[in-house]
Amino acid sequence: MAKFVYDFTEGNKDLKDLLGGKGANLAEMTNLGLPVPPGFTITTEACRRYMADGGLPGEEIATHLAKLEAAMGKRLGDAEDPLLVSVRSGAKFSMPGMMETVLNIGLNDRSVHGLAAQSGNERFAWDSYRRLIQMFGKTVLDISGELFDEALERLKDGRDDLDLTAEDFRGLVGTYKEIVSEQTGRDFPSDPREQLDLAIQAVFHSWNAPRAVLYRRQERIPGDLGTAVNVVAMVFGNLGMDSGTGVAFTRDPASGRQGVYGDYLPNAQGEDVVAGIRNTVPLQELERIDPSAYRELLDIMARLENHYRDLCDIEFTIERGKLWMLQTRVGKRTAAAAFRVAVQLVDEGLIDLDEAVIRCTGDQLAQLMFPRFAEDAPNKLLTKGMNASPGAAVGKAVFTSDRAVELAAKGERVILVRRETNPDDLSGMIASAGVLTSRGGKTSHAAVVARGMGKTCVCGAEELDVDTRNRRFAVGGTVVGEGDVISIDGSTGAVYLGEVPVVASPVMEYFEGGPITDDLVTAVHRVMRHADGARRLAVRTNADTPEDAARARRFGAQGIGLCRTEHMFLGDRRQLVEDLILAETPDQRQAALDALEPLQKTDFAGLFEAMAGLPVTIRLLDPPLHEFLPDIVELSVRVATGAGDEKDARLLTAVKRLHEENPMLGLRGVRLGLVIPGLFAMQVRAIAEAAKEAADARAEIMIPLVGAVQELESVREEALKILADVGVDALIGTMIEVPRAAITAGQIAEAAQFFSFGTNDLTQMTWGFSRDDVEASFFSRYLDLGIFGVSPFESLDRDGVGRLMRIATAEGRATRPNLKLGICGEHGGDPASVHFCHELGLDYVSCSPFRVPVARLEAGRAAITCLDSDTR
Amino acid sequence: MAKFVYDFTEGNKDLKDLLGGKGANLAEMTNLGLPVPPGFTITTEACRRYMADGGLPGEEIATHLAKLEAAMGKRLGDAEDPLLVSVRSGAKFSMPGMMETVLNIGLNDRSVHGLAAQSGNERFAWDSYRRLIQMFGKTVLDISGELFDEALERLKDGRDDLDLTAEDFRGLVGTYKEIVSEQTGRDFPSDPREQLDLAIQAVFHSWNAPRAVLYRRQERIPGDLGTAVNVVAMVFGNLGMDSGTGVAFTRDPASGRQGVYGDYLPNAQGEDVVAGIRNTVPLQELERIDPSAYRELLDIMARLENHYRDLCDIEFTIERGKLWMLQTRVGKRTAAAAFRVAVQLVDEGLIDLDEAVIRCTGDQLAQLMFPRFAEDAPNKLLTKGMNASPGAAVGKAVFTSDRAVELAAKGERVILVRRETNPDDLSGMIASAGVLTSRGGKTSHAAVVARGMGKTCVCGAEELDVDTRNRRFAVGGTVVGEGDVISIDGSTGAVYLGEVPVVASPVMEYFEGGPITDDLVTAVHRVMRHADGARRLAVRTNADTPEDAARARRFGAQGIGLCRTEHMFLGDRRQLVEDLILAETPDQRQAALDALEPLQKTDFAGLFEAMAGLPVTIRLLDPPLHEFLPDIVELSVRVATGAGDEKDARLLTAVKRLHEENPMLGLRGVRLGLVIPGLFAMQVRAIAEAAKEAADARAEIMIPLVGAVQELESVREEALKILADVGVDALIGTMIEVPRAAITAGQIAEAAQFFSFGTNDLTQMTWGFSRDDVEASFFSRYLDLGIFGVSPFESLDRDGVGRLMRIATAEGRATRPNLKLGICGEHGGDPASVHFCHELGLDYVSCSPFRVPVARLEAGRAAITCLDSDTR
Repeated sequence: MAKFVYDFTEGNKDLKDLLGGKGANLAEMTNLGLPVPPGFTITTEACRRYMADGGLPGEEIATHLAKLEAAMGKRLGDAEDPLLVSVRSGAKFSMPGMMETVLNIGLNDRSVHGLAAQSGNERFAWDSYRRLIQMFGKTVLDISGELFDEALERLKDGRDDLDLTAEDFRGLVGTYKEIVSEQTGRDFPSDPREQLDLAIQAVFHSWNAPRAVLYRRQERIPGDLGTAVNVVAMVFGNLGMDSGTGVAFTRDPASGRQGVYGDYLPNAQGEDVVAGIRNTVPLQELERIDPSAYRELLDIMARLENHYRDLCDIEFTIERGKLWMLQTRVGKRTAAAAFRVAVQLVDEGLIDLDEAVIRCTGDQLAQLMFPRFAEDAPNKLLTKGMNASPGAAVGKAVFTSDRAVELAAKGERVILVRRETNPDDLSGMIASAGVLTSRGGKTSHAAVVARGMGKTCVCGAEELDVDTRNRRFAVGGTVVGEGDVISIDGSTGAVYLGEVPVVASPVMEYFEGGPITDDLVTAVHRVMRHADGARRLAVRTNADTPEDAARARRFGAQGIGLCRTEHMFLGDRRQLVEDLILAETPDQRQAALDALEPLQKTDFAGLFEAMAGLPVTIRLLDPPLHEFLPDIVELSVRVATGAGDEKDARLLTAVKRLHEENPMLGLRGVRLGLVIPGLFAMQVRAIAEAAKEAADARAEIMIPLVGAVQELESVREEALKILADVGVDALIGTMIEVPRAAITAGQIAEAAQFFSFGTNDLTQMTWGFSRDDVEASFFSRYLDLGIFGVSPFESLDRDGVGRLMRIATAEGRATRPNLKLGICGEHGGDPASVHFCHELGLDYVSCSPFRVPVARLEAGRAAITCLDSDTR
Repeated sequence: MAKFVYDFTEGNKDLKDLLGGKGANLAEMTNLGLPVPPGFTITTEACRRYMADGGLPGEEIATHLAKLEAAMGKRLGDAEDPLLVSVRSGAKFSMPGMMETVLNIGLNDRSVHGLAAQSGNERFAWDSYRRLIQMFGKTVLDISGELFDEALERLKDGRDDLDLTAEDFRGLVGTYKEIVSEQTGRDFPSDPREQLDLAIQAVFHSWNAPRAVLYRRQERIPGDLGTAVNVVAMVFGNLGMDSGTGVAFTRDPASGRQGVYGDYLPNAQGEDVVAGIRNTVPLQELERIDPSAYRELLDIMARLENHYRDLCDIEFTIERGKLWMLQTRVGKRTAAAAFRVAVQLVDEGLIDLDEAVIRCTGDQLAQLMFPRFAEDAPNKLLTKGMNASPGAAVGKAVFTSDRAVELAAKGERVILVRRETNPDDLSGMIASAGVLTSRGGKTSHAAVVARGMGKTCVCGAEELDVDTRNRRFAVGGTVVGEGDVISIDGSTGAVYLGEVPVVASPVMEYFEGGPITDDLVTAVHRVMRHADGARRLAVRTNADTPEDAARARRFGAQGIGLCRTEHMFLGDRRQLVEDLILAETPDQRQAALDALEPLQKTDFAGLFEAMAGLPVTIRLLDPPLHEFLPDIVELSVRVATGAGDEKDARLLTAVKRLHEENPMLGLRGVRLGLVIPGLFAMQVRAIAEAAKEAADARAEIMIPLVGAVQELESVREEALKILADVGVDALIGTMIEVPRAAITAGQIAEAAQFFSFGTNDLTQMTWGFSRDDVEASFFSRYLDLGIFGVSPFESLDRDGVGRLMRIATAEGRATRPNLKLGICGEHGGDPASVHFCHELGLDYVSCSPFRVPVARLEAGRAAITCLDSDTR
């Protein structure tokens, strides 16, 4: 027979699927012999059954309740000496929108007297009773919390909560019961077991609360996991000044000292800390208030760390001098703390370096690489919003997109401030150093687009009153007008008035080749060194200039995975490119190509020098030619209004000829190479000649946008002739960026020595949307609807794009076992995507220079994690 | 040990892979006891070996040659009584560009006298000898044929070939030998065995001639098949007036009579018929010339038809009254003949109706459905080009695209005449009734684009001298200027001066519900009836109006597979759609939707009525909204030049807001539905209410552009509510047109009751090119390069798009076994694609009304063919 209820003595920390995170950890602590109030967990399986047929495992609950009563020597809701319990939800993953906790179950008009008698504290008993009704009313009976809050405020009438008397609370109980009757049409349930069952059911129900459903959709948490429910004997931190409640980390993430990082609130229950009714005191004060409890707590912290081999966060309550542990879990931490703590734990012998690497994420490393606002500099914090896209931006506040563009054109740094952004704001966002909005969350338009651009963004700063018409915002008493300087911190969500000095990141300086200056950099250095030793993926960079290549090499890049030659066609070469496009005869075209060739050769020579001894993958020209010509609308207007000259008219003809409705799906990549005689040949010759003259060049020639092996064969044949002619060796391979290339990879590998997954285009074509067009128009809506958990341009879509990559990898290697495989889309620097690439067995990832350290770390983590799961 | 040479007595018609088509059929006839000159075949395997290591199976050839000599009682090139042989290539598929034939091998300065003595005809002997040197020189030694032709012309000096004497030919032999020495630097080889070996090697070499390679690439014929070589004892049709040569079909494809359809040329060899040195006589004349040979020929024709159970074409030679069969194969035939002959053979008991259906193709049926030029009307044929895109078009000749657009705007019908077309001619091609070019083949820009548009096209009419500057073309003595009427026949390639009357197709009239008027229509009727009985695929139509739906139903459509609702948003509803797009408040938007709803309901009611009792699949709005607004360039110019009004300025703002760089990859399909509140709901409600009021409506609601199951779930949820609300049942399904939909079909099937493959978009996104943009810009180049054999928009790309369909079909059905599967891209009417859909196991194909009969026939053929191969 299935078992739906587990006593805390029956579980352990590895049963999170069944008992939820909270229940599993309570059981773990119980079995460690730590002072956990007795209790039991109703499993996630019971939740699933409840949702299927509405039934609770009533008898099992009764059995366990009886056991609990026996252990405590009290009966639930007994009139003389009542056992009280809390009911707490506890899913495998914590989830906003789910019911949290109902305390003091078991109180009613009779047992409140028993509690008063037993505790010798009538005020406490009536306070506890009103808390039950309030919490039960809100979370189980779905009554607006404001009704209870308002009643309490009326009663307090300005007094502190400690000033309220037993009589006051008794009156409040009456008021609260009236609220319940009025709002639900029935009396507050006085039967303790009914209270318990209703609370359990409410927890189960809350699994499907809209916010929880949305969150799961966005986070791709399966909807059918269900939540567990913990029923725990109550202990009270509000029995007097010898009681209290606290939260803590087991060690200070900055300094590493144990027992110093937390808050304690005497004579209070847990929810009072959250509500902030009085100021908490630092945890260290407890040493003075209750030295024995403090020592015991320190001892427990040490045991927990030893046991969990990690920094934990805990909740505890002291009831008349007796310490009780209410919760523990591996603690969340800042990016810097992650590295520091991991290395400390290594030095303490608790974990090995493999484990340390696993505990430091690439996202955390990336945070440490951004410049930050100086912490010690004087600043005026205006408000905090959501940390939507990291970085530290300073600039003049502007309130319209047009104004942003205007000032930016004059060289001013601006911050675009809007209630919320929409696609019309795109140009303004591009022109700004940062974006600040008063509405919308991390999936809002502003947040999504800013992240896509790598632009600092704080969103949903709800205290801002943005007045676009009058070009100003107000917050607190401060009014900020257009042109006033503000500073926004995309990593913390802080918004400051005035210019806050920005300090460079010591971690970035270290990666740039600087010294190891402090313990944080030391920690990063040790973690990175170990990750590099562990990883199987090489990390290359996407770089088009010798400067970028050299910087990436300092960051640890092992070659260039993508050099986009189109970037070399801009600037003062535009005229030559124009000549090429406007050529009317083969001779004119060849003349333009001949003029470009030595320039290209110089370009490539610089890259080969910067990356001497390492592979350099050069992609032949990819974008449609009209990208090198003026915009059709602008030019048409200029010509039509007579503002253009004769050359404009000629240009317009060419622009019209080359105009495509969907340039992304047009004449570009290998198609250009096959249609424009001599273009690819010129590039290949420039590569070959530069490689021949360079010291230790390892050229790899990459053909873009191949969809059929025949395309590649045609280009390859010509390229091989040129290479033989110049007398240089180079690999010839292809991007896999068109779905057909992935689907027919087995054929394509016959003509390719390497594949490089161009996951930007591959994502666009697999989903059928162009990033430029759709990120602005519907991605935020899609994220809200949970259609994406994360933009597929940010992190590889495993089911769709990923599956195509899997097919291409397997079938490409089946054709050519030594096929070299890499990725050069922006996903190459995204942590989750790096892991996927490792799982796929690619040879390397390639990313922008600044993401190289992130990719190195994540490649190491992926290798260690896979090893772990392989040997498990 | 491998056997590389087969005597004709050792082979049979099923050994085409090994012996090539010609060799296999010669062996078959030999074994039937027909009079075939003895000979042997060197296999394709020998060719493959030759290409690998350059070796010929010399001993085997010697053995078989000795056997041949024994059978003939002569020795190859013997001075007294020489055996002469022909060497003929014979691959599995016949292929332009490959070497055809060398006759008279074995002649040299000595054996020519033996031949003269034995034949008693010195003139014949020297003529044969000069023919050998000429053919050998051209095809084996690669000497320009013009050199020989010129020498002959100089010799003839205006005389007929029959006037040339033995002495003349003897002189010509000397001249020819000089040409060979001059051109090759060595003497014409006089050793008979050397002649033979060189000719065999030349055939093998010609397998890799550029034209043959290109043809194979385009036709997707594997390059490593190789060709066989046939060595056949010579028989002579040029030994006097009791000799001759002829070609024939075994029956007249029009009337069905045997022995009446062919040409005979007395006293000549085969190549003379091709060269047209004298006029041939109709085959029937042979009855008078040589009644005994004629009777034998008729008898052989009957035997061949009985044996091959099909119309055959044959080549024969009569040598001094003795009939020899030189070749046979199943004969090519016109579309009408295919149907007539198939049914005749059924009636004669030679084949069954299954076989008859297999022998009539959808392409042939489609040809019969086009109107044609009246055959008996007086007409003036100007020239013939290639039949690039079928149909009969009449109009005024124009020579520039602009002029075509200009005249078409005035309601004139025009034919665009160009040397060749390029992407700039697109608008002109759209405006014209037909396109005529003087250059380029069936893969030229004009041909590819015209076929894509379904527009009549004749291309590569090389006799035309097109003078664009002076707006005229000349052909023969005729000059045709702008505005002169011409008629072009895209099915035959004919170009006529003036207006040729067009007659409707009786087959089309039959499909329209007309009577069975003649034997052709009878044949079509019987074939179609049987195909319908055999097929497993249903055939639906793509139709947006009740008229189209009704017509398609007459053509045999079993429902609507695709109704594009966007076509209902045009015309006088444009204003409402504009209101919808320009709405600034939810109320304004809802008002526009409310106004559209009753109109949509009427639209759907009409379709349900026309298709009562049959399924009607309605696709919700698909295209990006800006398609309903003016063009951005035009509007910008109008506003900038002050030509626009206040509304234009407002429109421009909206157009700019909605502008997308790549609308194909933008805000469209299900994305629109999820972003614009109420839009899909309005359409679903209109469908539901129309269905409720209709007599026997079977509505299927189709969501476009789904890439993730979550998108479909969101729309489906809302649609189900509306259907429940109205009280109507309808299937809800999705297009599979984004690669990701195919790749994640297993998930999507959870929310879809049917899939319809939108292979237009699926092809675009799988290849990463947009049809509109690329057909014009590089498809012709790709076809020339052999990257495509056929445009993937014309016929399904099996390896790429087809594989995605295979994945989606298998995984969709795995999730939902009763998933309904269809195709609604234009491929639904393409024969090869219909076969693929049958193989995939789809439930239906849907195509334009006019392709419905084609799809019915091909679905029947596919079913019969599969059955055949299953039971084989």
